Amino acid sequence: MCTTPLFEVSPASYDIVPFVRSLSRFLLILAAASPLYCANSQSVERWDRFELTLKGPADGNPFLDVTFGARFRFANRVVAVDGFYDGEGVYKVRFMPDESGEWSYTTFSSAAPLSGQTGTFTVTPPGKGNHGPVRVRYVTHFAYEDGTPYTPIGTTSYAWVHQGDALEQQTLATLRQSPFNKMRMCVFPKHYAFNANEPVYYPFPRSAAGENDYTRFTPEFFRHLERRVADLEALGIEADLILFHPYDRWGYSEMPAAVDDRYLRYLIARLASFRNVWWSLANEYDFMKAKNMGDWDRFFRIVQETDPYQHLRSIHNGTVIYDHAKPWVTHVSIQTSELEKARDYIAEWRKPVVYDECKYEGNIHQRWGNISAQELVRRFWLGTVQGAYVGHGETYLDPHDVLWWSKGGVLHGESPQRIAFLRRILEDAPKEGLNSIATYYLGAGQEGRYYLFYFDVNQPADYTFELAKGAKYRADIIDPWAMTIQPVSGTFEGKFEMKLPGKPFMAVRFVKVGE
Amino acid sequence: MCTTPLFEVSPASYDIVPFVRSLSRFLLILAAASPLYCANSQSVERWDRFELTLKGPADGNPFLDVTFGARFRFANRVVAVDGFYDGEGVYKVRFMPDESGEWSYTTFSSAAPLSGQTGTFTVTPPGKGNHGPVRVRYVTHFAYEDGTPYTPIGTTSYAWVHQGDALEQQTLATLRQSPFNKMRMCVFPKHYAFNANEPVYYPFPRSAAGENDYTRFTPEFFRHLERRVADLEALGIEADLILFHPYDRWGYSEMPAAVDDRYLRYLIARLASFRNVWWSLANEYDFMKAKNMGDWDRFFRIVQETDPYQHLRSIHNGTVIYDHAKPWVTHVSIQTSELEKARDYIAEWRKPVVYDECKYEGNIHQRWGNISAQELVRRFWLGTVQGAYVGHGETYLDPHDVLWWSKGGVLHGESPQRIAFLRRILEDAPKEGLNSIATYYLGAGQEGRYYLFYFDVNQPADYTFELAKGAKYRADIIDPWAMTIQPVSGTFEGKFEMKLPGKPFMAVRFVKVGE
Repeated sequence: MCTTPLFEVSPASYDIVPFVRSLSRFLLILAAASPLYCANSQSVERWDRFELTLKGPADGNPFLDVTFGARFRFANRVVAVDGFYDGEGVYKVRFMPDESGEWSYTTFSSAAPLSGQTGTFTVTPPGKGNHGPVRVRYVTHFAYEDGTPYTPIGTTSYAWVHQGDALEQQTLATLRQSPFNKMRMCVFPKHYAFNANEPVYYPFPRSAAGENDYTRFTPEFFRHLERRVADLEALGIEADLILFHPYDRWGYSEMPAAVDDRYLRYLIARLASFRNVWWSLANEYDFMKAKNMGDWDRFFRIVQETDPYQHLRSIHNGTVIYDHAKPWVTHVSIQTSELEKARDYIAEWRKPVVYDECKYEGNIHQRWGNISAQELVRRFWLGTVQGAYVGHGETYLDPHDVLWWSKGGVLHGESPQRIAFLRRILEDAPKEGLNSIATYYLGAGQEGRYYLFYFDVNQPADYTFELAKGAKYRADIIDPWAMTIQPVSGTFEGKFEMKLPGKPFMAVRFVKVGE
Repeated sequence: MCTTPLFEVSPASYDIVPFVRSLSRFLLILAAASPLYCANSQSVERWDRFELTLKGPADGNPFLDVTFGARFRFANRVVAVDGFYDGEGVYKVRFMPDESGEWSYTTFSSAAPLSGQTGTFTVTPPGKGNHGPVRVRYVTHFAYEDGTPYTPIGTTSYAWVHQGDALEQQTLATLRQSPFNKMRMCVFPKHYAFNANEPVYYPFPRSAAGENDYTRFTPEFFRHLERRVADLEALGIEADLILFHPYDRWGYSEMPAAVDDRYLRYLIARLASFRNVWWSLANEYDFMKAKNMGDWDRFFRIVQETDPYQHLRSIHNGTVIYDHAKPWVTHVSIQTSELEKARDYIAEWRKPVVYDECKYEGNIHQRWGNISAQELVRRFWLGTVQGAYVGHGETYLDPHDVLWWSKGGVLHGESPQRIAFLRRILEDAPKEGLNSIATYYLGAGQEGRYYLFYFDVNQPADYTFELAKGAKYRADIIDPWAMTIQPVSGTFEGKFEMKLPGKPFMAVRFVKVGE
């Protein structure tokens, strides 16, 4: 029934990505004048990646000269998706289907051989561990698209994909043992304190004299990035991709506007089909002196208009917090140590608030990189009990300048295991997330069902709680640093006094057990 | 040479006040038609209290009917001082001379027998421990009038003078062993949580039905208050007298304006001559619903215009910080936990800033009264290294509701000894006080001579300091909680890297040792 395919049609194939199991891994690419398509052999999981590869013109500069893409159709719905040139005459278009069933596509291009190609493929239900992309849910929280709760427990390793395979593999091994399910990471390499090394790959062809050819991309750079994003996906980790940043000696922070825009579209064409991608427009956008607010707004609109899947979008500040009320911002990603403002931020923006950077555990001389593990754990709890989310980073001095925050490697700190402890608590919490509750001490939960209080530096010997009437609750006294959960005997309802440990940094949890 | 005095002229005599040693303690008061005065026998230390007692009319209501006072003259300077009626036909005027040498006085009164009395007395140099009243010095700091540095290390026991002799004596014994040199205390008794007891004395005659006679004062009430202020003076403790407060069931928080004003003038007439008095217009003024800003401004002006010695004046807020830029405010007395604003407050107001209340060490359920000792010590240091001052309070639960913060008694906490440790460090610091220094970490000192840095939750393993050139410094690593001072070997100058403990809450001190 099937002829030998004259062009590749397959899900993207990365070593550790499970969704390729059902397909023969390599379909040879042959030069094709009038391609044939074998629809019956194609299937892909819902939210996995369908990839169509065509051969096309290699002369001139295809990055600039050739437009290419496809329209994907499910029932009456049509999704237009940009493809990209992957070098050596190879064109690809990737697609993340969000419905199970039969899909079809038709390519479009400025080059005749790439235009009007059609085909169909079957989307099967998602496999184990595939819950789709993360979306905003319950206004100020997140969930995977299939409804599975997602509580961001992020870490930061800005330049980990630019460190070479050995260190990158070590980073992945560390992540596998860690509590983290989100990674803040830059597309571009990083130049900064502790970051003097050259990257393995450059995004644009670069001359020996250090001149970038901004008219072309380096496909190897992006293929490597894609492999790492897929590695994270296999670990259940969201890739919070930072699209621009100011730590630069190569020129990427001050490219011409047309290059910025082309880079965004190329990146989105390559990476939007990865379900674990989030778009972080920039790190410390306000420190990028070559950009102004108009640039950031334009970048947001490009991402918003180009990404067919509407992955999460935000932008991370240095000192000037972006106006997260703007409609293209899906969630708030901020740098600040003002944890006490979390409730106000949530109330103001009515979007999920993520303190991606509230200083890092470590011992370097920079004050953003040397808070104690105790303080970082405290900040995680302060954010949590106001309904916000907090991110991790680690910056312990290393003789080879391998600091987790930027290069990955191994973790040395004392906070990750406490963050893991908190993550387990949050995974036991209501799937609708924890919302700030107007109480005398900081507390969050779901009224009438679940309450989590945190007493911070306060150490009351007792406290009179007042919980929603009509329910009985069991209680636990939680020590976030010692990682103990001590059940309190009895059940509680209404207004009642409870003895507390009289120590600072304690938490109390109430869970409904009956009417 | 001397006749038997027909009226008393003596320094005020309180049991433990040392300055009365050189005088015969009791000069009998005799009824006098035309009094004589024995000038040669009278002497008083500079900044001690000269007191003139006259017999006058006892009929009618002398509190309202009789004006009385004296003009004190030194060389060409004349100071008008209000006297007061002390009951049973006794009138007094008190005076704190600020110059050594010969002074004279002439009384004035609406009652003929009290008017036109004259006399002289000798003011001797101050004795040991007598440095005069505390003044603002070096713009944002304090010193005694003789120039001796004064670093406020305050505590709080609002109603300690209303607890009866046994507990009051215990409070004094505790203070004697404590590091505190300032006491925040209310004139009026206190009604509040943990404060249900009746006071021993009432400021106004009070009927069995609980009605106040606001046309008269109760001299015993004020004599008792004066005794306690003198007790503090003997311990070297400033009495930061709170003139109004909202915690009231007797009516003192909502008296008619004319009564408020008369009360202020009477209190000043009685107490202004105590050199250790500060005027705190109110505690949590903004919680006193019967008063408005016009009242507070009027009270300030009355105090400013009536106190001949211009004792320190401030007002303490609940949630709304008073406009301390107003000219009658000598220093800033605030309630807030926003220690991080200390530098800004000082820069804005250019007056000494005292965080009189930044929450108390304790374990009661109210969050203002249950921070850990560690946190309170941290706040003392945060204020200190920004050039501000911080106050102490303690609120540990007690079976008899004797909490230090309000009733005195004994201290249970772990912060006082660390505050004593800090006090010793400050007493070794330049007498001009510590001014905030624009550095990456919080630091204060006197450029080129002395630096004190505090790293708070930051725990750098090393840091590159940059001190004023032209001097060599010795260095100490200070652990404010362990109360250790570890000298660093060698001397330092200019810009240099120093190893640090890599632990949170450490401090570093640099002291100039040479050019």
